[in-house]
Amino acid sequence: MSNWYKTQDQNSSVAVSSRIRLARNLKGLPFPARMTTAQRIELNQRVKEAILGSNTPFAKTLKYIDMHDVPETQKFAMVERHIISPEFANKTEPTAIILSSDESISIMIGEEDHIRIQVILAGLNLAKAYDIAEQIDTLLHDSLHFAFDSKLGFLTECPTNLGTGLRASVMLHLPALEWGGEIETLGTSISKIGFTVRGMYGEGSKSMASLYQVSNQITLGLGEKNALDNLLIITNQLIEKEIESRNSLNKLELEDQCFRALGILQNARILSSSEMMNLISCVKLGKSMGILDIKASPIEILVEAQPFMLCGKYGVLEPRERDIYRANMVRETLK
Amino acid sequence: MSNWYKTQDQNSSVAVSSRIRLARNLKGLPFPARMTTAQRIELNQRVKEAILGSNTPFAKTLKYIDMHDVPETQKFAMVERHIISPEFANKTEPTAIILSSDESISIMIGEEDHIRIQVILAGLNLAKAYDIAEQIDTLLHDSLHFAFDSKLGFLTECPTNLGTGLRASVMLHLPALEWGGEIETLGTSISKIGFTVRGMYGEGSKSMASLYQVSNQITLGLGEKNALDNLLIITNQLIEKEIESRNSLNKLELEDQCFRALGILQNARILSSSEMMNLISCVKLGKSMGILDIKASPIEILVEAQPFMLCGKYGVLEPRERDIYRANMVRETLK
Repeated sequence: MSNWYKTQDQNSSVAVSSRIRLARNLKGLPFPARMTTAQRIELNQRVKEAILGSNTPFAKTLKYIDMHDVPETQKFAMVERHIISPEFANKTEPTAIILSSDESISIMIGEEDHIRIQVILAGLNLAKAYDIAEQIDTLLHDSLHFAFDSKLGFLTECPTNLGTGLRASVMLHLPALEWGGEIETLGTSISKIGFTVRGMYGEGSKSMASLYQVSNQITLGLGEKNALDNLLIITNQLIEKEIESRNSLNKLELEDQCFRALGILQNARILSSSEMMNLISCVKLGKSMGILDIKASPIEILVEAQPFMLCGKYGVLEPRERDIYRANMVRETLK
Repeated sequence: MSNWYKTQDQNSSVAVSSRIRLARNLKGLPFPARMTTAQRIELNQRVKEAILGSNTPFAKTLKYIDMHDVPETQKFAMVERHIISPEFANKTEPTAIILSSDESISIMIGEEDHIRIQVILAGLNLAKAYDIAEQIDTLLHDSLHFAFDSKLGFLTECPTNLGTGLRASVMLHLPALEWGGEIETLGTSISKIGFTVRGMYGEGSKSMASLYQVSNQITLGLGEKNALDNLLIITNQLIEKEIESRNSLNKLELEDQCFRALGILQNARILSSSEMMNLISCVKLGKSMGILDIKASPIEILVEAQPFMLCGKYGVLEPRERDIYRANMVRETLK
């Protein structure tokens, strides 16, 4: 397996990635917000031993990383790769992460909850991602005792996660729905039935690269399977609508826009992050629709051209310098 | 010789073309504004015979064209090639033109004055252009009698042309002076000493492709040689200032802009005239400064991508259709 953003999913030109997150807490320890440093260190050790001490195939692919050993730049590059949350990257307390070599599995220790199991896979792969997350959950459950209430389910720091502790999400590329102005209406409808649509990489509901994350909101009173099934239904409806919208776009105008975007990316010497994302979105659409014949993966470029990813690769860079390195990297990749 | 816009002048990256125009009127005939149709036809015939009836080398390269035989589209394409004035293209009375095969010489008959001799050459070539214009002037003078006053010089319909009847002009590419906002100040200074700077292809003083025409205004009380010498001094000063400005531009930003312009022109599927001109201007600058390594001539593209030039080449086209043909033509030329 490879990192989600390096894998080109052939099955869907709309679904970019699928993510499962399970929130778990250990019985007998306060929630992280109220933990002492000693308790945090104890937590890290217990989770580490539970995973790495087990003799499962998982254990061999997983690595325990003390977050104090990770430089700031690399932490935020992890955020850009969707491995950890920004809140986790900002924590100064002793926290740790258990990571698979392909980064598809990441277990944050000491974020909002004691344990946050995350599995992220390319394309529309909710069932597979859930399957992996569940195996980790079982593994941890064997040696750790989770805070669980027969009525409320898994206990979590925030009541919105109570119950299954499951947050399932799909990242979708929805440029046609965005251009058509349909995304807001769809977002409002979807939120009424317990799901959220929000822009990735951007502020508020408007996304930078037309990337939107659809996720379940309800964790209480609804089983994991139902939550996943419902999310899949919503996701497939959005994909269908997006493809309809794409097919109704003016072909020539679309070609014009896609080729121009590629032309700029192949030529620019200075490239801001936001411009790069908007152009990459057009290139992704053009590639998906067979307009642009390029080998490079637009999503891979989008992730690798993020500010901290560039800093991690080329050393600490000033914003202006970063725009130059970004332009060079993108140009070379698309040549 | 070749059309001015098809010739790539190696000597100057700033001077695009040089133009000489001599206004002449025949004794005993009213100015065109007051001529009857019969008198116009008589005028056309007399000029035609004066030129084509002579046994000079000129005569063999020149062709007489009745403007009634020229389709509207071609007339305005001639305007775009700077062969005739827009006023002349709009005339419905019997008018004619005498044209050399390379279009460097054009003699408009029945424009504002009876005769307008024009010579247009690529680059900074005022002396050579004047030399050719003078030969035609002498040739015509031999068989026609020009309205001439010993005090006022050549008589012309408009008093601004009285005297030498000479308008000499140079078309300059001044992107760096334009970006730096210096062009307006320079234009004002220059106008105070009897010269005019005006944008080509655009409205008012702002030009579309940073192309500006510098011309003499004084035709009375100043000999032709002095007028040309003064224009040359002004022109060389402008060229020097432009080159200074170019060299003080931020190199990376300039490269970014030039490469982006080329990238868009090489990729767009829909291209408006104004966008094309602004991008071509960047490409011309980039080529002049050794940033872009392209064979095609930006000025040739700029002229050939004008609306009526496209109509003439591809048949009558709607504006939208024209933007598509323009994009295709430009893309192919720059591939």
